[in-house]
Amino acid sequence: MTPQDITAYLHAHIPMTAAIGAEVVERTPTSIIVRAPLAPNLNHRNTAFGGSLSTLGILSGWAVLNFALRDLALPARLVIQKSDCDFIEPVANEFFAETHLPEPDWTRFVKMLRKHGRARIVAETLIRCDGTEAVTHRGTYVALL
Amino acid sequence: MTPQDITAYLHAHIPMTAAIGAEVVERTPTSIIVRAPLAPNLNHRNTAFGGSLSTLGILSGWAVLNFALRDLALPARLVIQKSDCDFIEPVANEFFAETHLPEPDWTRFVKMLRKHGRARIVAETLIRCDGTEAVTHRGTYVALL
Repeated sequence: MTPQDITAYLHAHIPMTAAIGAEVVERTPTSIIVRAPLAPNLNHRNTAFGGSLSTLGILSGWAVLNFALRDLALPARLVIQKSDCDFIEPVANEFFAETHLPEPDWTRFVKMLRKHGRARIVAETLIRCDGTEAVTHRGTYVALL
Repeated sequence: MTPQDITAYLHAHIPMTAAIGAEVVERTPTSIIVRAPLAPNLNHRNTAFGGSLSTLGILSGWAVLNFALRDLALPARLVIQKSDCDFIEPVANEFFAETHLPEPDWTRFVKMLRKHGRARIVAETLIRCDGTEAVTHRGTYVALL
């Protein structure tokens, strides 16, 4: 799937991703970058709202795992179990969430999922704004075949 | 401020709170309940999206602290530093986030803020759906005078 295809899928199935203007701008088989503009995500102090930032972290981690499972034709349900987000710097411009498939955990996760029909994995996401590391997100996801 | 006033403030200053339909339904000087409907918060599996749930947790914790600071006429900037969210059960209906001012931490926090112009506090939020505890959120907030 292209970044455009994934964005269209997200907007069609998760309306909040359209409301915050989330857009997949890059995808490789092992990584994803999701962008969000500032305007729909402003808070009362004219920086990005914490809820928008944690949402982009949750989404980016979920997307890299979900579409990598699709590439393997593994029809798993993937749900978030835990979200931990650290807000390091205020975000005063568009922001970009980047997640990579975590190796060697990903290989172990796929093996476990094929064998037991259930597996858990942690994906770490970095959110940058103007080239600065602004937020880190750690999501724990569970897949069920 | 009434629940309606707070809702209007949130929608005017944090557009994402309007996008997810967040609405303050109850407020006492020491607690708040924020509701969100399911429709704008659906995911691809027709339950509530993790991003929407963590957002309501962040918002509810922030709101109870922020408006309690206003009641004390303490003009502090209050920002989230850390958000930890546990997704226990899927949410398949409207959901309600409830946060209470944490005592004795609140009293200590106000004293520290008055003395040093800066203080940190943790607020725990419970999100319920159909009477069931579905999500817990733990937010760490920093106030600056």
